[in-house]
Amino acid sequence: MNRQTERVIKLAGLPRDFEREPAGGATMFDRWLLRLLVAPLKQPPFAVALWDGTEEPGSRRAPLARVRILDRGALLRLLVNPLLHFGDMYSAGRVEVDGDLRACLEAITAAIVEGRRERESLWWRIWRDQAPRSTKPHAARDNIHHHYDLGNAFYRLWLDREAMQYTCAYYPEEPLSLEQAQRAKMDLVCRKLRLRPGQRVVEAGCGWGGFALHMARHYGVSVRAFNISREQVRHAREWARASRLDDRVEFVEDDYRNIRGEYDAFVSIGMLEHVGVSHYRELGAVIDRCLGPRGLGLLHSIGRNQPGNMNAWIERRIFPGAYPPSLREMMGVFEPFAFSILDVENLRLHYVRTLEDWSERFETETDRLRVLYDEAFVRAWRLYLAGSIAAFAAGSLQLFQVLFARERNDAIPRSRRDIYT
Amino acid sequence: MNRQTERVIKLAGLPRDFEREPAGGATMFDRWLLRLLVAPLKQPPFAVALWDGTEEPGSRRAPLARVRILDRGALLRLLVNPLLHFGDMYSAGRVEVDGDLRACLEAITAAIVEGRRERESLWWRIWRDQAPRSTKPHAARDNIHHHYDLGNAFYRLWLDREAMQYTCAYYPEEPLSLEQAQRAKMDLVCRKLRLRPGQRVVEAGCGWGGFALHMARHYGVSVRAFNISREQVRHAREWARASRLDDRVEFVEDDYRNIRGEYDAFVSIGMLEHVGVSHYRELGAVIDRCLGPRGLGLLHSIGRNQPGNMNAWIERRIFPGAYPPSLREMMGVFEPFAFSILDVENLRLHYVRTLEDWSERFETETDRLRVLYDEAFVRAWRLYLAGSIAAFAAGSLQLFQVLFARERNDAIPRSRRDIYT
Repeated sequence: MNRQTERVIKLAGLPRDFEREPAGGATMFDRWLLRLLVAPLKQPPFAVALWDGTEEPGSRRAPLARVRILDRGALLRLLVNPLLHFGDMYSAGRVEVDGDLRACLEAITAAIVEGRRERESLWWRIWRDQAPRSTKPHAARDNIHHHYDLGNAFYRLWLDREAMQYTCAYYPEEPLSLEQAQRAKMDLVCRKLRLRPGQRVVEAGCGWGGFALHMARHYGVSVRAFNISREQVRHAREWARASRLDDRVEFVEDDYRNIRGEYDAFVSIGMLEHVGVSHYRELGAVIDRCLGPRGLGLLHSIGRNQPGNMNAWIERRIFPGAYPPSLREMMGVFEPFAFSILDVENLRLHYVRTLEDWSERFETETDRLRVLYDEAFVRAWRLYLAGSIAAFAAGSLQLFQVLFARERNDAIPRSRRDIYT
Repeated sequence: MNRQTERVIKLAGLPRDFEREPAGGATMFDRWLLRLLVAPLKQPPFAVALWDGTEEPGSRRAPLARVRILDRGALLRLLVNPLLHFGDMYSAGRVEVDGDLRACLEAITAAIVEGRRERESLWWRIWRDQAPRSTKPHAARDNIHHHYDLGNAFYRLWLDREAMQYTCAYYPEEPLSLEQAQRAKMDLVCRKLRLRPGQRVVEAGCGWGGFALHMARHYGVSVRAFNISREQVRHAREWARASRLDDRVEFVEDDYRNIRGEYDAFVSIGMLEHVGVSHYRELGAVIDRCLGPRGLGLLHSIGRNQPGNMNAWIERRIFPGAYPPSLREMMGVFEPFAFSILDVENLRLHYVRTLEDWSERFETETDRLRVLYDEAFVRAWRLYLAGSIAAFAAGSLQLFQVLFARERNDAIPRSRRDIYT
């Protein structure tokens, strides 16, 4: 394992030092614990088995999957907090899923959502996703480093090849490749913003720079794009030079809070999830400071129908500080500054498709990834992608695009017809 | 004045027994009061004059309008609460506006919004719009009676002739007549709801029934439409019979809280303003009870960028109980039931156009209205229409259409392209 790989694995933060206890037969007590664990799922469409084959059968004669808990330690951890430990135990290979992982996770997601809402069982009060960690400037830098600096090479393996978009794509018709769908997403955003040649755009949270370059290349605008991920900014700058767009696209390694200047458009795709509700007003103030009187702005973010924390495992192991807001919570960015919401679109089902495409590519690269990183890393990412598909498919997560303008801006578009024709 | 007219005038509730004091010359004290009154407007683009011609000139050499306060009682009332008394004094002819009434009201609206936000002057803390009155079932009936039972004949004079839509129209291209724009609005809503022949639709707050009949006639759906205005329901039923649509459109004189049954679509155009924020959850529960698993719903409502009460005069004299919610407040209908917001569109500038069309027709009918009702009534409605234009033009009011579905509904539309092509 080379140093880069070690660093990446350290970043991922997955526990790897599990003491797997010797299996032995499951006792009556183990079986009782198993029933306790499965009961809140209310006869899921999958079976859950212990290390010796003891099984809680689930609701279907031919279950969609079989979840196998391979030792007592894993069983106990799952009882303490399955929302966190299912991911860790799965990554460590101490929980195995035979069959349809996604269907299994979708059923679990639905049961969690339902269980929390009904508060029927004590478990759903005990099993909680904690609030996200801090997203203040220094913490934000660590959070973003954790996820986005896993190595550009890693993401290049399974994201779209043209623009490296690590956000929801848009599939308005069938069939579209991932590359086409990411292009369609970028064009959708540009059309909503009614970009015109010569305009100045600021982008908050620009990933590897693919969207900034797309705007400059196809819409003739100049772009200042902010990101606190050093790896991504380095990549973006090289990409701009190679594309000969570095005279019109500037990548700034800095926090969104430090954006200055006046712009015709403010756009942020997939950053709000990392901002933290308590900083929404700060983000609103930045937009208020930077958006020209006739400017349009767009935020694109994962969200929810009701407030709720990100799954504990995802927040801890994959996306530190992440929080998907409800639309009501999102308004915390806009209302204090009387921004006028012009248009909200929910692309939930498009994220299912996007994640399916990513997941499919990811699976074709697992041999390489297993060598580069390790098995736990591959399993963690498989689970993360499948779990995300499940969350969007079950409606537990949404994808909102919110277009807005200043209150006194009368140059706002009259209709949305021009976006589609 | 016949009994019907007397009833209508009583309903409107406009004070008519003003003691106008003998004018006389304005004293130094009067002129000081005038300066106090005008100061918070920060040099408006209009002049304000007293009964003897004393004038505060405003910011422009050629002012857009001249507001004349015609007696001391009116001046004192304006100082106590201009938000309420400007309307009453104007209706009673004790305040006169020469020149551009709308521009004058737009400047006042902007000053109010700005003044409240900045809290610069003590006046903006004293001058307040009170919270709307109760919208509980019995009160709601009185509120609706007050406004909508002014007589169908009255509204027929200036609303569109085809569908009697007393809500924001839609002008996607120019030029469109009011009739065409109201048809375009109804079609926009039907297309957003993806209505298909044979579906069952419930409409909450159906006005004179024009939209229910439009849906049945052009989209082949069956409709149950609820309204607590007796006059409107009677009109709607006659209209359904005359249109031979009474086998597919049922008008129910009842409160939205009593809607029962299961429907493929839930639609409400211009009712939410009368529901009251404290009843949003109740409305959400009704929708939750009535919307089929694959159903779509749409609420169309006047709203705001930031929470704030309706103008005191409008709430007292024109629309008792009315409250335009911010988008965040509107989410109080949806979030408790985890409805998924699919689409929000803001039609603010379309309401400016709609109100301009209404206002223009209203002005051609003033002679007739002066005979039917009286001068104060005509002046009150002129002010209400001009004030509404001003509020939408200044961005103090918005118009939101919110499309939503159940969380687990995967039959939601993939894209909005089909709405426009």
